[in-house]
Amino acid sequence: MKKTILDCDTVALDEENGALVIIDQTQLPTRIELKFLTDIEDIWEAIYLLKVRGAPAIGVAAAIGVYLAVKDLQTDSMEVFSKKFKKAKDYLASSRPTAVNLFWALDRMEAVVTGHMQCGVGEVKELLHREAVNIRSEDIQVCRRIGEYALELVKPGAGLLTHCNAGQLAAVKYGTATAPMYLGQERGYGFRIYVDETRPLLQGARLTAFELQAAGMDVTLICDNMSGAVMKKGLVDAVFVGCDRVAANGDTANKIGTSVVAAVAKYYGIPLYVCAPTSTIDMSLPTGDKIPIEERSDDEVTEMWYEKRMAPAGVKVYNPCFDVTDHGLISGIITEYGMAKAPYEEAFREIFREKLNK
Amino acid sequence: MKKTILDCDTVALDEENGALVIIDQTQLPTRIELKFLTDIEDIWEAIYLLKVRGAPAIGVAAAIGVYLAVKDLQTDSMEVFSKKFKKAKDYLASSRPTAVNLFWALDRMEAVVTGHMQCGVGEVKELLHREAVNIRSEDIQVCRRIGEYALELVKPGAGLLTHCNAGQLAAVKYGTATAPMYLGQERGYGFRIYVDETRPLLQGARLTAFELQAAGMDVTLICDNMSGAVMKKGLVDAVFVGCDRVAANGDTANKIGTSVVAAVAKYYGIPLYVCAPTSTIDMSLPTGDKIPIEERSDDEVTEMWYEKRMAPAGVKVYNPCFDVTDHGLISGIITEYGMAKAPYEEAFREIFREKLNK
Repeated sequence: MKKTILDCDTVALDEENGALVIIDQTQLPTRIELKFLTDIEDIWEAIYLLKVRGAPAIGVAAAIGVYLAVKDLQTDSMEVFSKKFKKAKDYLASSRPTAVNLFWALDRMEAVVTGHMQCGVGEVKELLHREAVNIRSEDIQVCRRIGEYALELVKPGAGLLTHCNAGQLAAVKYGTATAPMYLGQERGYGFRIYVDETRPLLQGARLTAFELQAAGMDVTLICDNMSGAVMKKGLVDAVFVGCDRVAANGDTANKIGTSVVAAVAKYYGIPLYVCAPTSTIDMSLPTGDKIPIEERSDDEVTEMWYEKRMAPAGVKVYNPCFDVTDHGLISGIITEYGMAKAPYEEAFREIFREKLNK
Repeated sequence: MKKTILDCDTVALDEENGALVIIDQTQLPTRIELKFLTDIEDIWEAIYLLKVRGAPAIGVAAAIGVYLAVKDLQTDSMEVFSKKFKKAKDYLASSRPTAVNLFWALDRMEAVVTGHMQCGVGEVKELLHREAVNIRSEDIQVCRRIGEYALELVKPGAGLLTHCNAGQLAAVKYGTATAPMYLGQERGYGFRIYVDETRPLLQGARLTAFELQAAGMDVTLICDNMSGAVMKKGLVDAVFVGCDRVAANGDTANKIGTSVVAAVAKYYGIPLYVCAPTSTIDMSLPTGDKIPIEERSDDEVTEMWYEKRMAPAGVKVYNPCFDVTDHGLISGIITEYGMAKAPYEEAFREIFREKLNK
């Protein structure tokens, strides 16, 4: 296995050595360090310490992790095997108790075991291996298909802006908002990419600027409040962002600041596209008003990262982790089954019909 | 003289001790330290090291400084006196070679000397004292009058948002964008103030949040990309910002990010007002297109403030210091002679006529 980010997906299974391979994101952007993890304790710690982060990446890491935990179990009894599997699964699930994708992936793995109690242990190990590999390859496929649809919307040489990290580092390969950028790079499109640093946690500066630069793209880092300056200068042709949750009417919750970029893009007449795997579209929510917005601790704004305190002691801080972008600010929502345009509810129903038929 | 910021203007003359009094801004927000400067070398250093900053504040400090430098000269010869004055003036002018207000204030002081060569040294010292005091009190008056006009636009209990530091710390008292906040505080208006941290140099977090909190206001610090979240929640009733230069059509150059706040405010239907002393309105510029935009060094974005590098080495950075807000995004431009509304060129001519007549 090659040891640079350009040759390696964010999360992989090293079949030869029976290891989960990740890029240690806590070392970025200062150091590129691949971790080859074979022990379940190390895998638990990697998720807990955010060495691997991003919902899809965590799910894939957990699926591979739980497979590795049981693949060398020496028993012929499915009773014994399934008990040990359950223990490993519960242990990994405790690493990030609020990460929905972690449970989703582990549940999918568990269903393989509970659905095949009549089979031999060897066969179930094979099936678990296949499921982990499938979870991983499905993620790559979803991102790649989003990238293909997104790429149709822009021309070679275009200026593209993105916010936060909806990149390869949050998934396995391509990412969502970055998928058209990677595909364009493969095809010599020569995009100019502008990356918002994304305060307070700086995922744009630390992760997105890093991964796109490592892939050889023309990347320019800006502060979040510079989007107006680059758009006014005509440097941006389209904005691509990811999402955490999309309501039936197209209102989109994503990293704090997305709605700001969206309002600025709207003012300058620049299209903004949300890259959204269908798994993030929640048809049970009529609008974005009901999406709960997590608020995080003050020190992310006032102290974290800094050499000394950068705001007066005791000042109140409002630190929402996400904001909701009104559907009216969104030019299109790109899924792995094509792009939805307003009115979104109708368009989403069409997309889900197509997904069912495939 | 009392030693807390609440009782002290940013720049003052301590008559009793013959000292320039400043708040050392390099210690903010960690420590509040008043400096009593009597030697011209210390005054030069205070300006050079940004212990006093902000165009009006620098001008006032230099005017007081050059007065202090000559007030105890023992000579009866205006020849000797004016030579020593010129030397002190040139020395102080070298502290910040690009600060226009520094030269403007020093030139005004010099005109007092050159215009009264026929007078006695004692009388000229008196006149210099009066001019320095005038320069300082005129700045306070301009800010106060802007504040009075601005205060008419908002109701008690309103939520106000500001960007960067167009505050008392950049002037002598009241500031420009903060003037309605100080006057409202004096009158028990109970404003809720939202302060953008203002990347990359964090003037909002370090200075504005500090000074408004020190004045007892209800201050909430946010990252620049959170303006959309607070506006969407209905927490903001008006935005007040300062300016560096205003074109005849109302296009306004101000700290980077102002145009972003303006576009977001426009989307949510919230008025944005520019607080502009008439000295910043440049009728020779038809539009904002010709305003030169200073670009600053990459490390302000990638390294400064941080304990470790927060972006990949070698990444390109675009770091403009200002942006231009289109006049169409501005609800009104508030001067010391009242508020101009679109069409701005006509409104400015009316304001300048009024200024001439007063």
